[in-house]
Amino acid sequence: MSELRKRRDSDEKLPESAESDHIDSEDDKAKANTDLSKSIPSGTDKAPGLLEWLVKDLPDKWRNWAVRAIFSLIMIVFFSMVIYGGPLALMITTLVVQVKCFQEIINIGYAVYRIHGLPWFRSLSWYFLLTSNYFFYGESLVDYFGVLINRTEGLRFLVAYHRFISFSLYCVGFVWFVLSLVKKYYMKQFSLFAWTHVALLIVVTQSYLIIKNIFEGLIWFIVPVSMIICNDIMAYVFGFFFGKTPLIKLSPKKTWEGFIGGGISTVFFGLALSYLMCQYPYFVCPIEYSETLGRMTMECEPGSLFRLQAYTLPSWMAWLKIFGVDNTVYLYPFMLHSLSLSVFSSVIGPFGGFFASGFKRAFKIKDFGDVIPGHGGIMDRFDCQFLMATFVNVYISSFIQTDSPQKLLSQVLYLKSEQQLQLFHMLKESLENRNLLIPE
Amino acid sequence: MSELRKRRDSDEKLPESAESDHIDSEDDKAKANTDLSKSIPSGTDKAPGLLEWLVKDLPDKWRNWAVRAIFSLIMIVFFSMVIYGGPLALMITTLVVQVKCFQEIINIGYAVYRIHGLPWFRSLSWYFLLTSNYFFYGESLVDYFGVLINRTEGLRFLVAYHRFISFSLYCVGFVWFVLSLVKKYYMKQFSLFAWTHVALLIVVTQSYLIIKNIFEGLIWFIVPVSMIICNDIMAYVFGFFFGKTPLIKLSPKKTWEGFIGGGISTVFFGLALSYLMCQYPYFVCPIEYSETLGRMTMECEPGSLFRLQAYTLPSWMAWLKIFGVDNTVYLYPFMLHSLSLSVFSSVIGPFGGFFASGFKRAFKIKDFGDVIPGHGGIMDRFDCQFLMATFVNVYISSFIQTDSPQKLLSQVLYLKSEQQLQLFHMLKESLENRNLLIPE
Repeated sequence: MSELRKRRDSDEKLPESAESDHIDSEDDKAKANTDLSKSIPSGTDKAPGLLEWLVKDLPDKWRNWAVRAIFSLIMIVFFSMVIYGGPLALMITTLVVQVKCFQEIINIGYAVYRIHGLPWFRSLSWYFLLTSNYFFYGESLVDYFGVLINRTEGLRFLVAYHRFISFSLYCVGFVWFVLSLVKKYYMKQFSLFAWTHVALLIVVTQSYLIIKNIFEGLIWFIVPVSMIICNDIMAYVFGFFFGKTPLIKLSPKKTWEGFIGGGISTVFFGLALSYLMCQYPYFVCPIEYSETLGRMTMECEPGSLFRLQAYTLPSWMAWLKIFGVDNTVYLYPFMLHSLSLSVFSSVIGPFGGFFASGFKRAFKIKDFGDVIPGHGGIMDRFDCQFLMATFVNVYISSFIQTDSPQKLLSQVLYLKSEQQLQLFHMLKESLENRNLLIPE
Repeated sequence: MSELRKRRDSDEKLPESAESDHIDSEDDKAKANTDLSKSIPSGTDKAPGLLEWLVKDLPDKWRNWAVRAIFSLIMIVFFSMVIYGGPLALMITTLVVQVKCFQEIINIGYAVYRIHGLPWFRSLSWYFLLTSNYFFYGESLVDYFGVLINRTEGLRFLVAYHRFISFSLYCVGFVWFVLSLVKKYYMKQFSLFAWTHVALLIVVTQSYLIIKNIFEGLIWFIVPVSMIICNDIMAYVFGFFFGKTPLIKLSPKKTWEGFIGGGISTVFFGLALSYLMCQYPYFVCPIEYSETLGRMTMECEPGSLFRLQAYTLPSWMAWLKIFGVDNTVYLYPFMLHSLSLSVFSSVIGPFGGFFASGFKRAFKIKDFGDVIPGHGGIMDRFDCQFLMATFVNVYISSFIQTDSPQKLLSQVLYLKSEQQLQLFHMLKESLENRNLLIPE
């Protein structure tokens, strides 16, 4: 074992004799731990300048809590400002967060597999990030601005051949990977290739879905994200005050009390937030390109989801009357959907966190990074958000109407003229057959 | 090191002291090699019964060639029979091949990371295979048979909530994974989780795209697949007879002569095969559900791609006249597209093979399996096919019209009645504005 140890101690030197030098056995754990921590910046409670001065009189064990709380607040303020800044600001923030998350995951991969002799190999991961972003962002841009981009002469081929260009770019990366294979590093290189692809799968597809959700209306982004944050905080609070029964071995600090208390809080928080947001067209209107205005618009006649509707309480809830609640309540239908979202975010959401903490244990790191003082890396804060974006997207496409006539029309207008006419006549016939259209 | 060695020798016993026991250094290579070969059945030249008797008199070094040649022939015959069997037979074959490929990749993963103590963990990979197949096959079924399935009362919810069901199934797998995490195996479990997802990415998405290509018309499947096979064989033949200049370190037997000779052969083979196939509606017609016939049909008036067209030779090709070639040649436009396909299959295709052989070297295995005597595993034969399906799919969507009026109509018919009417009027107005439709 001594040979392995020596190699680890002189980390900078290229390990000449090994094809792969993993963390190998219990004995090496401690060693490896310091080693990885060296290459991956872990979360610290060191706070920048002014803040350092503010918390300097606190006892050590409270200092981290203060830093953590202050930075939670800063993040919430920042998040609100970004929302105030509108969809473009949100999209840019999503992109930045995505790049940081990818960087953190990839850095761990490179720290675990230590490829020091191949400086160019690292750029390959970034190239793949660029390519897949080009593909996914392009897909949504084409979806939403296709008609507009098509009008700009120079850009038309980008829309028409978008997939082909993306795939060609991917092929270049693939060939680059194969050509970059060096005998001593085969296994590491393939592992990192897989690592990169899994990172892309997690990071890029999620951020693509987030952007798609934003286009459906800001509410589809803000409510789910806030729910996860609320669940995180409330699970901690309930766990802190009432926590007794351990929930899962993976995260010894999580308790059933926190899980359940967080869940119930999230349901109520979600209902309240939805009720609030449903009143503003700014939050509920999808983002569309308006032909008449010649620009993007978030003004609309709110859909039926966002209009108050009378619901009669089922008989078993009649006891609510003693609280002065009427037999008939007025709700926004979106609030009922918010129930599904809050159930998902408090039942499945935490598993994203368990997954991330299992991952950190597997590779023996404390945090994903040290960007946010008191919290760790960006990934440490966004771990529960990951499946949520997919859920919202799937939920919208399954339970909320997505194919709007406008969107389908823009697809129809891509057809050749004679095909458009053909479709027109087929649709006319079909409508007439069903007596929806009276033949002229 | 001796401790590690010992552990490997008593492979069956659960390694108690190690979190991860990779192949660690050059010293261990030989050891690990025999070890992995033990768990992954490698290709053999042992042939079954009758064949064994046929080749028994051949000298050893020719025996493998004979077995390989005979099984190449058997595969080509089998492939032709499947094509003769029609699209359904092809789809089932694709599915079987996909499952075998997945099995081979996953088996290697389990052999590399050796999880013996967690029997249930293996089923998780298969569960994910099932889930992603349900998702992808469902997506194509909904695309092509949506209208039909919608009519069957019991199945309607499967179409409407397809994505939601798939995503729920995935979430079950995800939660299952997190709950199955066992302290000693964290790293191995995460590695295998990643391994499974990369395998799904490679195997399931490709086979989904293959099925989509088949629906566009059998020719979009047969021509590309045959091109890769032809390129494989001809590169070998040219390399065998003229090979001198080594092409890539990864596969020392590949030569530039084979690469170029194979490429040129593939171009001509592709042209000839396309010319042949373009004459039969069976190969060129997309597979569609016919409302009038009440069943699937592959009969159609062949599109313009598959109708002979006159091309005037450019002046620099005038010298062809001395061979009796007229100034005007008659070609199927599809033949020109076949040029792109053959260039891709002979330039990028081989990199799929290089990738696979690099992978085999990285994990020190000879073949992916031993299903096909003389060839190895299914993956050994299909390695170059992988990027091809994506290329064809992207190529069709970029350069060949895909959104047919029929497909769009079926999307329109999913809308609510009033939205269908709305779309109708918008389309009518748009057509009238462009003077394509005379207002009545």
